[in-house]
Amino acid sequence: MSRLVIALGGNALGKTPEEQLQIVQDTASAIVDLVEEGHDVVLGHGNGTQVGQINLAMEFTHNRGGGTPAMPFPECDAMTQGYIGYHLQQAIQNELRRRKMAVPCASIVTQVVVDPADPAFRRPTKPVGMAYTKEEAVTLARERGYRMVEDSGRGYRRVVPSPMPLKIVELPVIEELVKTHAVIITVGGGGIPVTEDENGYHGIAAVIDKDRASARLALDLKADLLVILTAVEKVSVNFRKPDQKDLDTLSIEEAKRYIEEGQFAPGSMLPKIEACVSFVQNSEHGRALITSLAKAREALQGKTGTMITK
Amino acid sequence: MSRLVIALGGNALGKTPEEQLQIVQDTASAIVDLVEEGHDVVLGHGNGTQVGQINLAMEFTHNRGGGTPAMPFPECDAMTQGYIGYHLQQAIQNELRRRKMAVPCASIVTQVVVDPADPAFRRPTKPVGMAYTKEEAVTLARERGYRMVEDSGRGYRRVVPSPMPLKIVELPVIEELVKTHAVIITVGGGGIPVTEDENGYHGIAAVIDKDRASARLALDLKADLLVILTAVEKVSVNFRKPDQKDLDTLSIEEAKRYIEEGQFAPGSMLPKIEACVSFVQNSEHGRALITSLAKAREALQGKTGTMITK
Repeated sequence: MSRLVIALGGNALGKTPEEQLQIVQDTASAIVDLVEEGHDVVLGHGNGTQVGQINLAMEFTHNRGGGTPAMPFPECDAMTQGYIGYHLQQAIQNELRRRKMAVPCASIVTQVVVDPADPAFRRPTKPVGMAYTKEEAVTLARERGYRMVEDSGRGYRRVVPSPMPLKIVELPVIEELVKTHAVIITVGGGGIPVTEDENGYHGIAAVIDKDRASARLALDLKADLLVILTAVEKVSVNFRKPDQKDLDTLSIEEAKRYIEEGQFAPGSMLPKIEACVSFVQNSEHGRALITSLAKAREALQGKTGTMITK
Repeated sequence: MSRLVIALGGNALGKTPEEQLQIVQDTASAIVDLVEEGHDVVLGHGNGTQVGQINLAMEFTHNRGGGTPAMPFPECDAMTQGYIGYHLQQAIQNELRRRKMAVPCASIVTQVVVDPADPAFRRPTKPVGMAYTKEEAVTLARERGYRMVEDSGRGYRRVVPSPMPLKIVELPVIEELVKTHAVIITVGGGGIPVTEDENGYHGIAAVIDKDRASARLALDLKADLLVILTAVEKVSVNFRKPDQKDLDTLSIEEAKRYIEEGQFAPGSMLPKIEACVSFVQNSEHGRALITSLAKAREALQGKTGTMITK
């Protein structure tokens, strides 16, 4: 029995509630395969599409006289943890039932501490919420202190920072549940971003990368394996070039060299490789695996995927 | 050490995120008082205001071309569990820290099973979401099968049923955590309503009364005490009449007689009394307490509140 922390990408979820309810069935099937093989599973997941929609709906309705209050960004993140967690846990529970496996599953609302002095707060990069006209953008910047940028011809959107995850607030609860072999869903959307001071925790507008948060969680839980499930079966160098090479294994040294060569796309494969490197490097015996959802079971059996090791 | 299931009413939360962040500090203080006295605490809470706002924002934005997908009602419920759970757990964690108490606290996304044959489904009564014109209401009824009613001059609103809670899906996880003496937040808004068949759980549009869901939870957890915190310090008969009588204790027999006399307002004190009666009657040694948030500690010490006993 080994302990896995698995980070699910956007392709494990969906763009609408109906689509998501469908897609999470395949996700659940892949996850329960791993539970069936005797692994303890802790799941992290993204929320880019969902937090965008919720934030947009709350802004749109508030701005246009729909009568709802302005909703801060961390609260929208918290909403996605309820929404996505509900779909994921229900699909996993239903799949466990089909296989007559008495394993509990639940989602934990999870805050993740970031440092307000993180350099990311000086250069916010993640667009969130709705698109505004230039005039509206200037007003929002003045009245609410938002950083607004022109977003590829779609208008002006608020950008928020993407700081590093430092601490998972609900870790003690997650640890207790992992001991009972329950399937736990946590750090949804990378976690609700909070700062910590002598008075405790306080929400802050930011987006924590879900792979980084899952790597932090894997370290804290002393996981045997960090698994990042994404759209591709293996990590490649010279990606989409004639000499593309798919990798079965990747050492930390190789990974660092490839990163320097610019082999991995920022905002796509790069943060995944960085998350894996940070986990493997700081963990005593942990390894990291990048593969697709469909190939997860085979990859766990050593048949495919890219394994990152010391 | 005794095990308490506490149901928080709307007055323990707020109407806007800012207001709620303020109010939950008082709520957290009252709850941590009880933890400090050595009780294990499991919290349920309402979500009337919050699910109304989220459902309204999702409908408003979808209907008016904001570009977000239609969002089913159970998913909106799930969102409120993330949103309110986040505020409550953060406030409780911060209060525990101030008192230097190392007690973990977290919210569990929670589904509650209802029976699709519950008579409530034949007469939906709870208005949710936005108000429509009569013409729009007719279209919604035809196209989406919504039951629409005129809501006190505000226009036509969708009404959903309020069925009885039968089973708390995530009970095994909640039980494990209560054993560790963590403060657990669950059955938010009465729980995400689901039906159960041979294929598992499936969301259904409904609103489960949070006091009834908390009573179900108290029974399942074999709680010593169900505590319903509301706006009044004690239950009264002849409420707001010259001969108003505040009750220190109430037996099941007395409660049933007063219910028959119509002493308790439907949608207000009546469901609370009914929830208490159902818990006390079906529990081996459990009692139930109705009081205000501010008086919770005193009431637990037997100094005030209304105690419902066999």
